[in-house]
Parts: sequence; C-alpha cells; structure tokens
Amino acid sequence: MKELRVALIGGGFMGKAHSLAYAVAPIAANLGASVIKEVLVDATPELAGRLAGELGWNSSSADWREVIARPDIDIVDICTPPQFHEEIALAAIAAGKHVFCEKPITNRVEEAVRMAEAARAAGVVTQVGFNYRHTPAIAYTKQLLEEGRLGVPLQFRASYLQETGFAADPNRWRATKATGGSGAVGDIGSHIIDIAEYLFGDIVKVAARARAKRPTPEAGWLDDTERIDSDLIDDGAVWLAEFSNGGIGTFAVSSFASGRMNRVAFELDASLGAVEFDWNSREEFRVSYTDEAPDQRGFRTVHTNDKHPGGMWRIAGLGTGYVEVSAIQFQKFVRAIVSGEPTAPDFEDAAHIQEIVEAVLEATVSDSWVDVPARIGVAR
Amino acid sequence: MKELRVALIGGGFMGKAHSLAYAVAPIAANLGASVIKEVLVDATPELAGRLAGELGWNSSSADWREVIARPDIDIVDICTPPQFHEEIALAAIAAGKHVFCEKPITNRVEEAVRMAEAARAAGVVTQVGFNYRHTPAIAYTKQLLEEGRLGVPLQFRASYLQETGFAADPNRWRATKATGGSGAVGDIGSHIIDIAEYLFGDIVKVAARARAKRPTPEAGWLDDTERIDSDLIDDGAVWLAEFSNGGIGTFAVSSFASGRMNRVAFELDASLGAVEFDWNSREEFRVSYTDEAPDQRGFRTVHTNDKHPGGMWRIAGLGTGYVEVSAIQFQKFVRAIVSGEPTAPDFEDAAHIQEIVEAVLEATVSDSWVDVPARIGVAR
Amino acid sequence: MKELRVALIGGGFMGKAHSLAYAVAPIAANLGASVIKEVLVDATPELAGRLAGELGWNSSSADWREVIARPDIDIVDICTPPQFHEEIALAAIAAGKHVFCEKPITNRVEEAVRMAEAARAAGVVTQVGFNYRHTPAIAYTKQLLEEGRLGVPLQFRASYLQETGFAADPNRWRATKATGGSGAVGDIGSHIIDIAEYLFGDIVKVAARARAKRPTPEAGWLDDTERIDSDLIDDGAVWLAEFSNGGIGTFAVSSFASGRMNRVAFELDASLGAVEFDWNSREEFRVSYTDEAPDQRGFRTVHTNDKHPGGMWRIAGLGTGYVEVSAIQFQKFVRAIVSGEPTAPDFEDAAHIQEIVEAVLEATVSDSWVDVPARIGVAR
Amino acid sequence: MKELRVALIGGGFMGKAHSLAYAVAPIAANLGASVIKEVLVDATPELAGRLAGELGWNSSSADWREVIARPDIDIVDICTPPQFHEEIALAAIAAGKHVFCEKPITNRVEEAVRMAEAARAAGVVTQVGFNYRHTPAIAYTKQLLEEGRLGVPLQFRASYLQETGFAADPNRWRATKATGGSGAVGDIGSHIIDIAEYLFGDIVKVAARARAKRPTPEAGWLDDTERIDSDLIDDGAVWLAEFSNGGIGTFAVSSFASGRMNRVAFELDASLGAVEFDWNSREEFRVSYTDEAPDQRGFRTVHTNDKHPGGMWRIAGLGTGYVEVSAIQFQKFVRAIVSGEPTAPDFEDAAHIQEIVEAVLEATVSDSWVDVPARIGVAR
Repeated sequence: MKELRVALIGGGFMGKAHSLAYAVAPIAANLGASVIKEVLVDATPELAGRLAGELGWNSSSADWREVIARPDIDIVDICTPPQFHEEIALAAIAAGKHVFCEKPITNRVEEAVRMAEAARAAGVVTQVGFNYRHTPAIAYTKQLLEEGRLGVPLQFRASYLQETGFAADPNRWRATKATGGSGAVGDIGSHIIDIAEYLFGDIVKVAARARAKRPTPEAGWLDDTERIDSDLIDDGAVWLAEFSNGGIGTFAVSSFASGRMNRVAFELDASLGAVEFDWNSREEFRVSYTDEAPDQRGFRTVHTNDKHPGGMWRIAGLGTGYVEVSAIQFQKFVRAIVSGEPTAPDFEDAAHIQEIVEAVLEATVSDSWVDVPARIGVAR
Repeated sequence: MKELRVALIGGGFMGKAHSLAYAVAPIAANLGASVIKEVLVDATPELAGRLAGELGWNSSSADWREVIARPDIDIVDICTPPQFHEEIALAAIAAGKHVFCEKPITNRVEEAVRMAEAARAAGVVTQVGFNYRHTPAIAYTKQLLEEGRLGVPLQFRASYLQETGFAADPNRWRATKATGGSGAVGDIGSHIIDIAEYLFGDIVKVAARARAKRPTPEAGWLDDTERIDSDLIDDGAVWLAEFSNGGIGTFAVSSFASGRMNRVAFELDASLGAVEFDWNSREEFRVSYTDEAPDQRGFRTVHTNDKHPGGMWRIAGLGTGYVEVSAIQFQKFVRAIVSGEPTAPDFEDAAHIQEIVEAVLEATVSDSWVDVPARIGVAR
Repeated sequence: MKELRVALIGGGFMGKAHSLAYAVAPIAANLGASVIKEVLVDATPELAGRLAGELGWNSSSADWREVIARPDIDIVDICTPPQFHEEIALAAIAAGKHVFCEKPITNRVEEAVRMAEAARAAGVVTQVGFNYRHTPAIAYTKQLLEEGRLGVPLQFRASYLQETGFAADPNRWRATKATGGSGAVGDIGSHIIDIAEYLFGDIVKVAARARAKRPTPEAGWLDDTERIDSDLIDDGAVWLAEFSNGGIGTFAVSSFASGRMNRVAFELDASLGAVEFDWNSREEFRVSYTDEAPDQRGFRTVHTNDKHPGGMWRIAGLGTGYVEVSAIQFQKFVRAIVSGEPTAPDFEDAAHIQEIVEAVLEATVSDSWVDVPARIGVAR
Repeated sequence: MKELRVALIGGGFMGKAHSLAYAVAPIAANLGASVIKEVLVDATPELAGRLAGELGWNSSSADWREVIARPDIDIVDICTPPQFHEEIALAAIAAGKHVFCEKPITNRVEEAVRMAEAARAAGVVTQVGFNYRHTPAIAYTKQLLEEGRLGVPLQFRASYLQETGFAADPNRWRATKATGGSGAVGDIGSHIIDIAEYLFGDIVKVAARARAKRPTPEAGWLDDTERIDSDLIDDGAVWLAEFSNGGIGTFAVSSFASGRMNRVAFELDASLGAVEFDWNSREEFRVSYTDEAPDQRGFRTVHTNDKHPGGMWRIAGLGTGYVEVSAIQFQKFVRAIVSGEPTAPDFEDAAHIQEIVEAVLEATVSDSWVDVPARIGVAR
C-alpha cells in the first residue's frame, strides 16, 4: 500500500487535533494509503521533541524549511498562526508537497490569492481546515440540494457564537492582529461563510456592523472607534449577504455570547424544504419537506450514520465528536491525493472566503453594501 | 365596580381572538372593572348578528360610526384590515373612546403618526396588538434588563418564520397591497421589531434585502423586480439594525419557511448574560449568566408562572397558550384605563415600528443603510 | 339555541379553571347549545358570592343540595376535594343532572363504583376531569392507533413529575388522607393511567414501589413504615403494568422531582411507529414511522392545529395552553349532552382508574404483582 | 516511558472501536505509558492479518492461547462474543495479564463470578466495557453525588432504546442464545444497570416484564411463550428496582423502538437536585438544584469540557463522540495499570450486573419480585 508521510508544522491545539485525526482516519475507513505521522515541527527542538512524543510523531524538528525540503515528505500540514501560512505554504508547494492548511488560510486576502495561484500552477492537492462542513448532517444537506430534493435556495440564517471573550485570561495571540489574531469574523465567521458557500453558492455582496463595545481588562468598555484604530481584533459582528443564486442570508458571530460554548448553527429555507443544524447536536439532520400531508408537517430529526456522507458508524446516534469530523476531513484530503477524487475547500475556496471576511470587515464601518470579488477560478 | 363597555369592529380571526381574551381576562385576575362585550360590528347586519352570537357579544351592528357615537361605549377595539384603521381610530378618539387597535397600526406611517398625535392630544389610552411581547418569558427578560441583571445589551438576533406561503389557497386580502396586505415585513416582521425595541431600545438605522423570488400559482417563480413593481406584498426579508444603545441585530422573516408554523424566536446577548426565546416553547425563559462557576455554566430553562410578569398560573408549566397571552395583553390595557398604570405598546410605539417597517422596505432595494426617524415622543 | 345551565360546586383552583373553560369553549367552537354559568356554590354565602363575582357566575349559593334540586340546572360540575364527590354526584344523578366531576373521581374505589352504577342506571352524561388526554397531540395519537397507522402497541413509558413537595408551605388539604389528599399516585398518577388506558387499553396487573423516604418540616426524612401507617399520603412511586393487549409499561410519579414543574410525559412504541409526548411542549406531536427510508428515519415534530382532533386554531403553533385544553374537554362534554356524541372518560372509566390506583398502592408494599379487577362495563 | 503491549482478541465492530480508542487515548492525554497495539487475534490467519492491517496492529495471529502465553504482552483485550469470555479471561489472568473485557462480561453469572474471583486472586487489573458511564456528564453527576451537592437519591428512571429489531437483516449471532446473543436486557440493559449502580448504589430487588410479542421474518408475531422456550433472546423488557440506599427506579429496554437509534437516557431525582442525561446529546450535563430562587428554578444545560471528569477538550461543546468516550475508558484502565489508580467497572462490578440481568430475566416470567444476590466483594 502506498505510504504518505506527513510533516506537521505547529503542535499546539490544532496540531493535537490533527494528530488525533491522522490516528483515527485510516482505522475508521480504508484510505488506499498508509498515512505516517513522520515529523512534527515546532519553535524549538525541545518543544518539538516533547510534542512529537506526546502526539505520536516519529520524529521532530525546529526547522520547517529543512523538513519541507525532505524528499520523503508527501504532505505538509500547517497549524501555525495565520501570518506564517503563506511563507510555509509557498515553500511546500514549491517543493511539490500536498498542503493542508488550518483556517483562516491567512488574514490577508492577497496572501491567500498567491497561495491559491501557486497551488493551481503546481497541481498539488490543497485543503483548508474548515472542518464543520464535513459533518455528515451538513454534507447530507449538500447532497439533497444537489439532488434537487430541497428545491431552490431562498434564505440562509447562520451564527457562530462563543463566550470565550468573557474568559479572565483570553488567548493572547488570538486577541491582537500583530500576532495573527483574525477576529471573530475571520476566526469563527469564516466557518459559517464556508458552510454558506458550500450549501448556497457564492456570496456576491454584504452589509455589516460590528459590535459597538468590548470589555477591557481595566473594566469598562472600549468604544468601537478605538477598536478599529487599534491592534485589537473584532469580537462580534452581524452581516447580510446576497448569494449569486438569488438567495439572501443573515450571519452573526460573537465571542461575548454568554452560555454559548461553541455553537455553530444555521437554518436554510428552500422552495421544497428546509434544514436546520446546530453543531451542539451535530448528529442530528433536521429537515422539513413541503410535500408532507397537512397533519404530518414539521421537522424530522434524523440521526446520521454511515448512510450519510462521511458517516463513520453503522449505528446512528452512536456518537460523532470532534475527532470523528476531523477524521472525515482528512479522509477526503488523503483520498484526493491517492485517487484524485475531488476535495474541498481548497486554497481557492479559502481565498474567496477571505475575500468575504475582508468585505464584511470593510462593510462594518460603511453605510453601503460592499461587493465581493469573484472567486479566482471564476475570474479566469 | 366600574363597567367598561367594548365595541369590537371586525369579527374575523382577530375578532375571535379578542373575544376569547375579553372572556378570560377578568376571570384570570381582578382588573378593577367589569368588561362588557357590548357590541360587535361587521360588514352587514346578518354577518354582524351571527358573529355576535358565536363570539358572545350582547348586540351587533353594521354601522361602526353609529356605534362609536354611542355614549355607553368606553372602548373601541379595531380588528379590521389595516387600511381602515386610521379612519375608525380617529373617529373613536374624537368621541373620547379608549382605542385598542390590531397590528400593524396601519400600512402607511403618515396615517400612524396622525393616529398617535390625535390620541396624545385627546389623552385617551391606546394600545396596539403586538401580543407576543406580553409573554411572561419576554416581559421577565425586560424586567431583568431594567434591573441591570443582564448588563449592557450587545447583540440581538430575531426571526419570525411561517410556511403560510406554501398554502394552496393563501389568504387573499393579506396577499395584495390594495386590500391591506402588509407583507412579511409589516405583518410578522413588525412583531419582532416591537420585541426588539421593547428589550433593546430604539432602532436607528437598517440595511435590508428581500427574498429574490416567490412562487406563483402558474408555477415557476416571479422575480423580484416584478414583485416590487406590482401590487404583491413582500414575502420574506432579512435586515440588520443598529440600536440607539450601541447594540446590533439581525432580523429575518419569511412566509416560505418550510416546517415553521408560527415561529417567533430571538436570542439576546448582553454583558452579564444572555436570553433566548422561542414562541413554540413560550413557557420557557432560557437564560445564561456570566457569573456562574466554570463547571456549571450554561443556559437554564425556567418555566414561567405567576412569579413572572403577567403569569396567570401558580403552577409553572401548566400551560400558557395564545388565549392566556392575549388575556394578559387586555389586562394591561384595561388596568391602564381603570387605574392609570402605564401600558404599551401604544400608538406612538406602533407608529415608530411602522417607520422601521418602511425603512426596511426602502432598504431592501437600496445599496445603502437607511436612517429611521426618531419616534414622535422623542421629536417633541 | 338550547340553553344549558351549570352549577359549579367548589370555586377553588379547579373552579377557576372550569370557569375559564366555560367562558372559552362556546366562543372557540359551535357547541349546539348556549352554556350559562348559572350558579357557583361554595362553603359560605360570602365566599360563594365573592367567587361568583370574580369568576363570572350569575348567582351564588352555600347550599349545594338546594342548587341541585333546582329544575333549571342541567349540569352539576363538582370541584370539591374528593371525599365529597360521591354524595354530591349521587344527589345530582338522582335529580337527573349531567355531572362533570374533577379527578380523582374519589379516593375510594367503592364510592367510584357506586357513582358509575348510578350514572349508568340514570342514563345521564358523566365526565371526569382527566384533561391531559384531550390535548390534540394525544387525541391524534389515539386516532392513528385506531386507524392502524402505528400497528400493534408494544411498550409504554410514562411519568408525571412535580417539585411541589419541596415547597416551604405545601398545600395542606392535599397532604393528608383525612382531608381528601389522594397522594402522588392518585392525584397525578391517575392522569398517566388515564392516558395509558386511553391509548393502550386496559391495565390488568401491576407491580410497584413507593419512594422510601419523605422530608418532614422538622427536617430529616420520615421512613416508609411511618408513612404507610400514618395519615400522610404517598409522594412518589414507580410501577409496571401489563396491558390486556399484551403491551407492557413503566410509570413514575413524584412530588420531589427538582426542576419539574408540571411534567406529564410519555413514550409509546408500536410495531409500525412510535410517539413521544411532553406536556411542557404540548403542541408538539412527535412521531416516528418504521417505513421511512434508511437515510430519513427519525422522529418528526408536528405542531398541532385544527387538522388534529380538538385543535382550536388554524395556525399550528399559535399556542395551546391550559385554558384551550380545558375548553376542549368541556366541548366534548357539552356535545355529548346536546347531540349524544360519545365522550370520555366517564364515571366508569374513572372508577377503573381508581381500581388501578388502589392496586398500585397495594403493590407498593407487596412482593407480588397485584391483579386489577375488570372494569364495570366489562364485568356485566 | 513504560511500554504496555496489547493483544486484541476479536477484530469485529468492538475490536475496531477499541483500536480507535488505543489510537486516541495516549494522544489526548499523558497516560504515563506508551500503549502499543501489538497483536490482533481473530479466527483465521487471513482474517486476523487483514484486520491487523486495517486497524493498525503490529502483527496478527489466529491462536489466542499462544498470544496470551507471550511474555511481552501486558494487556489482553477481549472482544469476542460473550460465550468465549471466560475461557480467554481465565487464561489471560493465569498468565498474569491485565484484562479488558467487552460487555456483557458473560451471559452466565457463574462464569462471571469465576472470572472475578480469579482476577482478585491474581491481583491483575480488570475492566469491562460499560463505556457510557465514562461520559463526562455522567462522571460529573457521580462527582456531585459524592460531594453531597445533590443530596439523598430518591428516584431513577432509565431507558436504552434501539430500533435495530426492525432491520431487515438483524445481526445473526446476537439474535440467538446459542451464538452468544444476550438479549436486550443483557446487551443494552446491562449498560443502564451499570449506570444505575454507579450513581445510585446496589440494586437489591427487581420486578419485571418482557415484551409480549416479537416479529418474525415470516411476518406476524411470535408469542411470548414460544420465545421463552426457544433459543431466541428477549428483545424488550421493563423492570423496577429497589436500591440498597432506599431509592427506587424504573428501567426499560427495547430493540423495537421506532426512531430510537441508540438512545441511552436517564433521569435522577435527589433531595437537593435532579439530573437528566441523554446519550444523543451526550455533551450536555443537565441539572436542577432545589435552592434556586423562585423565579429562576429549572434545569440548566452545561456543555462539558476538561473541567468535568474525563473531559478531553478545553472548549465545551467542541464535540464528544463515541471515540472520545472510548478513549476516556481506556485512559482509566491504563492509568490503573501504570499508577494503581482505581478504575471501574471491574470484573466484580460486571459480575454483579450479570446477577441483576439474570434476576430481571427470571422476574419477567414471575408474579413476584426477585432478590438480587449481594456482590462478591460484599459477600466476603
């Protein structure tokens, strides 16, 4: 069986999540290749060595350039803060590696575009870690839309809410732009943009507002003007979107939503049915069809299993967690490398998401709607 | 005990709902007055007579002007289509009657403003039938906000969804402007605007989009341009709002939301807690506080009872239905007449809601945000 | 239109609930008769007079015998504590009145049997206030079972939970046998027994245990032996039942279930589908069918409306509360009087429920299953 | 770091689940040892070889006796059908191995007792795969009970429901006793018995009924008598239990519960609070406390994270699936081996669960309650 050797760049939280996914993905299903956790790279030899041991990698390094240059490495998996993504990705692509990159692909769209163009030119497989779309209930929604069972898309309502902002000691590097913090729109909003475009098609125009005030450690609230001018990232926003297919949508993100630990949710109305989804009950595919009998109309709750795309277990409701969904994500990536099956979202998809993120941020301080540029693939 | 005699103008669906509320309100609690269902008015003597019998009114009439002129009538309750509201209300106010008017107060803001100004000048009590805000779980949210227990309002997300648009035979008069149809924004959107302003304060600016396409009986879909130009009303829209207090919000309405029978829902994030509400589980007050212990954080579900504002039953979860909430609405109105307690929403509140409805409709075809005029009371 | 004059005996909580139902029932639907709230009876002339005013009755009395003797009274509605039910009911039946009696019909089965036999002999219409079964979602479950759409009944799981026991000042008369307290099994358990027999058929055998300990005001817990010997009523129990149709079931009641305000819930499995119900979301009919496609299986949630039995509103999810369900109950009772339509549960049904209550109580202190006598109608 | 080499006996569904858990457990947390997936054993060399490759084991074998004899093996993990458990476990214990055994420990209690006694005598660590109790929400309930925050246990209501019985092609070996099928009581009921004893203490007495009828492939239904006499296993049952601490409980299992894919659920009432759990929303710890303010009472929903026992993720609601819970189970087992921390349920716990399973089965055909023997540890 073909062997694929992975180099993981960055052993933090996402590096751990990816390590788990690589451990699970090949056991859960036949990928047509043996995936080998070859080398973990982090800032210092000591840190990299310790993390490689903890996360089960064969070796470690503090020099990502050297690792990328190794001919035995097939896949470069980038889990660093976003400001390092472009440099690493371009080097990996130049070395002919397939590249998996955590989201957001970058915090600056021009970097993302360069990455997407390089990958296209090199013909390598790329994928970006918008993991939520791989949830079987979401992938099944996509399937029903493609099969025409839900009809014409009409309205999409999505939110991604967290209460991390209230934490006494918020994650430092994520909180300022200089260290790669991408704000609520870029960090969590990008996930629901990805889901929206996956299901509804491209977003062409947005209007937006950011949350007006945010707490500071000194107590009190910092006003919006200060925030926009400062290095601090946005921590809550709302926006509307027009889709290319005529659909419309609302979006909301917040890091100051009390009681919301990690809630990714959407509702989708179409002309033949509607779907709702909440990551906190992620095994549930909830759907309503317009052709039900008058006394039997309503949403049904289907627990997903291996009859739904990506589903790992025959027993529905057995339990689909973060590890399972991450594993599905890597299964798609590996299969794309091994057998050429399509996978998504790739660097071009992610660059377009970043276009939208920047359009939303621009719109938050504008009294006009902001147009979103066409995606790279479309422009050509 | 003081007697209050009511004249009901319009014995359709809302007339029936009000008849039930008048029957229930005085039994459920002491109002300080005896409310007498004196006369029901409808289009013809025959219709009015039949409806008066069915809905339990002492007498009937086909001449609303004559009824309003009667000195024994204390309250005029208007349940006609919106285009008749102004004429009836102005006559009733001129006759010194207290006026309860169904929502929307009118479909044209200048009419609403005239009604509000006349009521203010005459000093009569007015109220408009935005019934949902009287749900104990919503009134209790208001109480907690006023007591400061939820802190500074941050973000509001609301929707009112129905699937009535899919019905084979949609309600005719509601479907065209000429017969008083107010569209999804005016008809159902006005309810969530009312709740938003009740809880979050005044809306000052909006951006919006209407649903792009709607089905026609001939099948296929009518495009947006045709709809805007035609006499047909809007049947779905999304909008953003800026509140005067710095909060921001998303709003969505639809008559083409499969599986949504009558779903009024909102989520409210504030600096010390969050609340969520769904009319389909209207007895549940769901709240999260930011000061909970780390291992005990989350939303709690409180079943409302008579310890919450308006609650009718000592036993929480006994059952709060449409009739109970309508009765609470009329209890507030009657108490305002009897003892001068404040009640809301009055004609001025409703005129401001209509300002927002029109701003939203204007914004649906604009690439700019639209400012909402200040409310009448504030302008003076 | 025919007039039906009601005498209400007992103006406490249930008397108020019935007053509301009589006010709502004829407005909500055409009953074929005019129902007149003629006279309210309570312990003293002063109390009866005050309550008649508050609850909207034409007159009052402190002498129930005199009222029952009045020829203008058609319906006697008994809302006293259970130990007075037999005497009043037998007198009313002897006077040829139709009788509505609150549940439990009595606390002693021999009284209930005498009442049922007298009613049968006299040919009057009787009904007992097991209101929950009239919820449209439950009545629709019954309809589907009768139509065969759910197949053969297999398993039934029900509970009725409250936290009233934790209240600092529990309702006195309900807490001891001498004043008519019927315990958790008789008071709330009888409701789920009624629903069980309504849906699954007769219960023939039970095994049971009562909660072992209960709190006393002096603090600490009273042990089971003391309770059984004392005048105190049971406050929690569990039991199994065998049904005549081969089905089996579990039942649980408690007055010491923290967080449960008034939760009546059941799950029903049958060979072609399953239904679940929770009074706290009483508008929801939740059903699963075994013939759904493999990737579409699961429970659907249908919001009931006027397409379901008893449903009052065309708009599903508009709001079905305690008042609506009480009104449905009286609509059925009045229609039975006016047009001879069957209604239930009548005194014979309620006597059988009381047989089961007593069998359960006997079984709580037995190491054997206890047989339930056949119902009166079956025995003949 | 210490190395622990595992031999897995049986590479079917549970063997795959264990393989995933061994892959995840050491990455998710530091176990103080390196766990090596050394050898997979199955019926033939070919099958074992293929499965070892798919599930990521270093080698394979078709001879479990030979593998158990190997001195390099530290842990024997038994995933065969139950009738083979005793022989393999006794051999492994005799060889001084630590033994993890899937549930039910056996289908015959005398075998289980021999296994437990052998393990005790040998001093090896044992654990049985009752995985659900390791869910952080359940383990946290246990913690709160031990800390006294929930007070005295009063009532427990549990069910484990599946619709697997309706499948056209039910799993063959599970369906008959001869091939190790343990029936609904033994197979799924044992899980809720385990949870019950974990939280509430030992069960001392049971009453029970099995479902009266079951479908046959030929259509129609087989009656109970035939089933009991035949080799077929039970497919649905209900029972009551008395706990040694005075609590009481209801239990229900079914393989013919339409729409229930894998629903393990319980409600627990205690004197200071109540907890409810549903595996289908397994990240939710739902609790009510009796000391809440009158207008704030109700259940709260806490999404578990690493502040709750076993929780793997800092972000609550990130996603706890089957793999995560299985990994927690093996983390406890490995830590018990490495550092002597207690783990459970061990062979003695599982033998007692089997005593209860057999008492329930005996009670299903008895008109009396059946006493459960004291557990092995207690008897000594």
